Amino acid sequence: MKSEMELKSSLEQFQEEDFGRKMHALIAKLYPICRSITGNGVRETLHIIRQYIPLIIHEVPTGTTVFDWTVPKEWNVRDAYIKNGLGQKVIDFQESNLHLISYSVPIKKKMFLTELKDHLFTLPDRPGWIPYRTTYYKEDWGFCLSHNQLLELKDEEYEVCIDSSLTAGSLTYGEYYLPGATEDEVLISCHICHPSLCNDNLSGISLATYLAKYLSVLSLRYSYRFLFIPGTIGAITWLSLNENRVFRIKHGLVVAGVGDSGRITYKKSRRGDAEIDRAVIQALKESDEDHEILDFFPYGYDERQYCSPGFNLPVGCLMRTPYNRYSEYHTSADNLDFVKPEFLEDSLLKYLEVLNIIENNRRYLNQYPKCEPQLGKRKLYDGMEGKKKQAVDPLAMLWVLNMSDADHSLLDIAMLGQLKFGDVQLAAHALLEKNLLKEV
Amino acid sequence: MKSEMELKSSLEQFQEEDFGRKMHALIAKLYPICRSITGNGVRETLHIIRQYIPLIIHEVPTGTTVFDWTVPKEWNVRDAYIKNGLGQKVIDFQESNLHLISYSVPIKKKMFLTELKDHLFTLPDRPGWIPYRTTYYKEDWGFCLSHNQLLELKDEEYEVCIDSSLTAGSLTYGEYYLPGATEDEVLISCHICHPSLCNDNLSGISLATYLAKYLSVLSLRYSYRFLFIPGTIGAITWLSLNENRVFRIKHGLVVAGVGDSGRITYKKSRRGDAEIDRAVIQALKESDEDHEILDFFPYGYDERQYCSPGFNLPVGCLMRTPYNRYSEYHTSADNLDFVKPEFLEDSLLKYLEVLNIIENNRRYLNQYPKCEPQLGKRKLYDGMEGKKKQAVDPLAMLWVLNMSDADHSLLDIAMLGQLKFGDVQLAAHALLEKNLLKEV
Amino acid sequence: MKSEMELKSSLEQFQEEDFGRKMHALIAKLYPICRSITGNGVRETLHIIRQYIPLIIHEVPTGTTVFDWTVPKEWNVRDAYIKNGLGQKVIDFQESNLHLISYSVPIKKKMFLTELKDHLFTLPDRPGWIPYRTTYYKEDWGFCLSHNQLLELKDEEYEVCIDSSLTAGSLTYGEYYLPGATEDEVLISCHICHPSLCNDNLSGISLATYLAKYLSVLSLRYSYRFLFIPGTIGAITWLSLNENRVFRIKHGLVVAGVGDSGRITYKKSRRGDAEIDRAVIQALKESDEDHEILDFFPYGYDERQYCSPGFNLPVGCLMRTPYNRYSEYHTSADNLDFVKPEFLEDSLLKYLEVLNIIENNRRYLNQYPKCEPQLGKRKLYDGMEGKKKQAVDPLAMLWVLNMSDADHSLLDIAMLGQLKFGDVQLAAHALLEKNLLKEV
Repeated sequence: MKSEMELKSSLEQFQEEDFGRKMHALIAKLYPICRSITGNGVRETLHIIRQYIPLIIHEVPTGTTVFDWTVPKEWNVRDAYIKNGLGQKVIDFQESNLHLISYSVPIKKKMFLTELKDHLFTLPDRPGWIPYRTTYYKEDWGFCLSHNQLLELKDEEYEVCIDSSLTAGSLTYGEYYLPGATEDEVLISCHICHPSLCNDNLSGISLATYLAKYLSVLSLRYSYRFLFIPGTIGAITWLSLNENRVFRIKHGLVVAGVGDSGRITYKKSRRGDAEIDRAVIQALKESDEDHEILDFFPYGYDERQYCSPGFNLPVGCLMRTPYNRYSEYHTSADNLDFVKPEFLEDSLLKYLEVLNIIENNRRYLNQYPKCEPQLGKRKLYDGMEGKKKQAVDPLAMLWVLNMSDADHSLLDIAMLGQLKFGDVQLAAHALLEKNLLKEV
Repeated sequence: MKSEMELKSSLEQFQEEDFGRKMHALIAKLYPICRSITGNGVRETLHIIRQYIPLIIHEVPTGTTVFDWTVPKEWNVRDAYIKNGLGQKVIDFQESNLHLISYSVPIKKKMFLTELKDHLFTLPDRPGWIPYRTTYYKEDWGFCLSHNQLLELKDEEYEVCIDSSLTAGSLTYGEYYLPGATEDEVLISCHICHPSLCNDNLSGISLATYLAKYLSVLSLRYSYRFLFIPGTIGAITWLSLNENRVFRIKHGLVVAGVGDSGRITYKKSRRGDAEIDRAVIQALKESDEDHEILDFFPYGYDERQYCSPGFNLPVGCLMRTPYNRYSEYHTSADNLDFVKPEFLEDSLLKYLEVLNIIENNRRYLNQYPKCEPQLGKRKLYDGMEGKKKQAVDPLAMLWVLNMSDADHSLLDIAMLGQLKFGDVQLAAHALLEKNLLKEV
Repeated sequence: MKSEMELKSSLEQFQEEDFGRKMHALIAKLYPICRSITGNGVRETLHIIRQYIPLIIHEVPTGTTVFDWTVPKEWNVRDAYIKNGLGQKVIDFQESNLHLISYSVPIKKKMFLTELKDHLFTLPDRPGWIPYRTTYYKEDWGFCLSHNQLLELKDEEYEVCIDSSLTAGSLTYGEYYLPGATEDEVLISCHICHPSLCNDNLSGISLATYLAKYLSVLSLRYSYRFLFIPGTIGAITWLSLNENRVFRIKHGLVVAGVGDSGRITYKKSRRGDAEIDRAVIQALKESDEDHEILDFFPYGYDERQYCSPGFNLPVGCLMRTPYNRYSEYHTSADNLDFVKPEFLEDSLLKYLEVLNIIENNRRYLNQYPKCEPQLGKRKLYDGMEGKKKQAVDPLAMLWVLNMSDADHSLLDIAMLGQLKFGDVQLAAHALLEKNLLKEV
């Protein structure tokens, strides 16, 4: 039983670690790299993460069939710019990798502004921000720039240069498997395909890394699988390569957008009442903080793939402000200032609180189901009105005894009794020690 | 697949037809006729409707046993009046057929006011209106009059004359069967037993007539059965004569009170969650107009019979203000001014929108259930942030793919995704065309 | 059928009986007795109740094993006091039996205030009230006193005397079995272990006594079992001795706290949707008075034992203000003024209204399930708009006919139709008389 308690007791020392600052520092380290769904930016990112956790890096060759999809060509970019008539770089990939539309094909050409404009994208409502755009599955090219920059462009001839390559190579992803006491798995998945964008999803990458690091020194009931994968194609690739093993995934969370100042939001799995859904709801309720619970919908992050009807895995998404609901989303304003150590740390804590419930949720059978067993003679009960506060909540003991009929887990009991999961768990442990319960 | 779309595309040209005015004109034509549950007024009414749709007129002989009931004697009336001492007609059936209580037995007698008063009915709260009353199953007689008329009657001897006949004959009803691609039926039922009352239920008769006319030129999936029947005894008679065929009725609506200015109201079938119930709820939600949904209750119109426990058919009632909730109900104030072309037209449109859902609701099976299929390579997806609005809603496509697991119909998916049924249907058609779905 | 109506018709003469005053008088008679979970105070109490109803008094020997518990030694007390240095009794059991902690072991000793204080208990927030405390399962001793009394105690030597005995004897409880037409039982249980406390639970004892007396002269469908037992150990003892018979308990109520001025509160059985739960909800709804419905929780009164998972009996608790929610609870302020005749009477009436539903709740099968049967020809229906109010509610008849499909009881129908149970019952009886229904 002791190992069960480790995550919880470890949680109690959580504050000292200054995880918020550390996670933000990792984000800052990864920020400048130009990532996409394939290419060297992904590799570089995974190598940095490997300095924190013993990641295995997989390379899946271009052209590999993964369900209805094909692993695309690998994209790399050396440089990209637009020069004006004076030869000055008016748009420069070196200044911000957001300037180049991801997966732009190589081009070296002169053209007038009218022609160029079909390939320029701005945000007129946010004239100082650069948008983020991609063209993964359609061979095309383009630049993103601030609307202010666009307005300054004169009607003259420009030199457009994209020194990129789109060639046979591979799709790269990272995987870290942390074995626990059982082969039942908890999946933690984050997408690593976005360039210099902090909340979406360097925050997720950083949280997943520190979560893995944190869990790796504990004795755990579940095995944990951490995936650092390009969005959509990465999840599809992993599911395709691991189709026969996914049945081991008992719970899962997609980590994304965990560094902004918004309240915590949970998007349920497609099942809607999976244990992970209920564990998150309980953890957020216990936090007594404002939060939001969303029903599943089939767009968003990689829960789309995990929850496709042929898999229907119990995977939700635990985030802060949902994608597309904040104006900085997919723009240059999703930068190092937009994510804060305190929000990252709060998000990590929520993940740990959820996992603590999952790790410790059990079903027991009351060994004395006819009437209440006598708690007093076992020193479990000192009267409801005792002078000293008792270590184990007597109400929680009564709830556990009354509901431990094999149909209810500790999480169910906490929800029914409107109790804290930790109190229910303590009560169950005390009862178990006196042989009043038996694990189902 | 093409035929499926006909009702929908036809709907788009709906506005040009001026159905409101046409329906009101038919009401005006039927208004003067003295109808009851049997008799020549019903026949005359059905013959007029036969000018619009090829109705079959059934005659069921007096004395026929229909479940617990017996088809009653046929009632006809040539004239009815009350004359005062001076020989002046103070109450005259020729002026309003509401003056005579329906199914009054013949009488020719002199009597003083005191005796006469037991047979006079007024509405003291609405002194200018004549109430509507019947005495179908109890041999009796009486007159209805405005309270003002009553107050003017002097205490003298009156001559009462009811020149009516109550003899062996038949119960008359109309039926129009419109065959569709399948033998599964949609039942549309209205009662035709009320005399000069417009909302209850000339509005229902007129709407059913124009709905039948409208549908008759379309290719439809369901067969449609339109019943023009006297209330209660007519429905019981039809069910009795067609007991072995009612299993074909998959959906049904009772049409009554569809011309007043009140909001649309739907009373659910006894099942409460039948497809017709959900289709109406979806259609009314999509209308974005104020409306009311009522649970089933075992009184009201002929849904009472269709939803009796031995049949329990999926038949609801789609109306405007429910019966007995407006003061004009069953009075002379339910006249040609009380029903308006615009409300009739709005009601007809709601019926068509409901039937459009019923006609097009299907279940499909996602042929690529493991992860999302790649929409882009099939030209179904141009990015969520595409510059031009896409013809098919990508979110609707994702919902259809995710939920097309054989358990969910398009209507289910629209409700789950809070989408318009039409968008879900378009999405399904686009996916079907690319063989991403297969009909269950 | 006639006997079914007896409880109802008897209810109608309820007012004349002045039950409130009578119940309060019984409370006053029992108030001075020093009760505990065993001992002569319990015996004396049961002998008084036997003057009202033919109670059987059971004696279960000390040491008897009852599930996980053992019947404790019998406790009796002759006298108890604390004398000051001048030999004056500063605390005197003869003045209030609350002064002595129940189950205090005998002691005769001199000690200074410092030592004594560990055995003194007060309510500093309510300085004039004496608290009520027990030490059933831990051999200890102590006194309760008002805080004002404590403050007056000088720092001197006191003589402490508890002339009590804790010896092999028995646990005493009372049982009254009232046979009905069937062996199916309704359990009414109250606890009798509290000394001079009126609401908790002399009110329950008195109500149970008068309820038994009231029912004993009626013809009833159910057999009724009234238990007058010490809390917890009494319920455990009874369940242990009657384990093979509890399956006969179809409905049950724990009676406690029924004399205070608070609104009626019902705590559901563990099942949550048992017939008793629904009957109470319906009765309280019909009362049109403010009330509260609580979900089951595994603490409170003896429903804890009846609803333990190995029994899971359909037993709720019908009370006024729940235990521990009023400040007088378990103090000397729960006295003869705190409970009032009018609240006791109202509580008894609620019990009778609930039992009236339970007694008369049946399932019928509509013998004419296809369409409505013709009510008019059976003189059951005089038109919805008849001049005189009909004896039997026609809407209730239509509800009963429509829902009597063997799945719905009269209580279900009342809840569905938002009707009074009595109206539904009358409707069913009228229909039954005409052979339109058959009992299932």
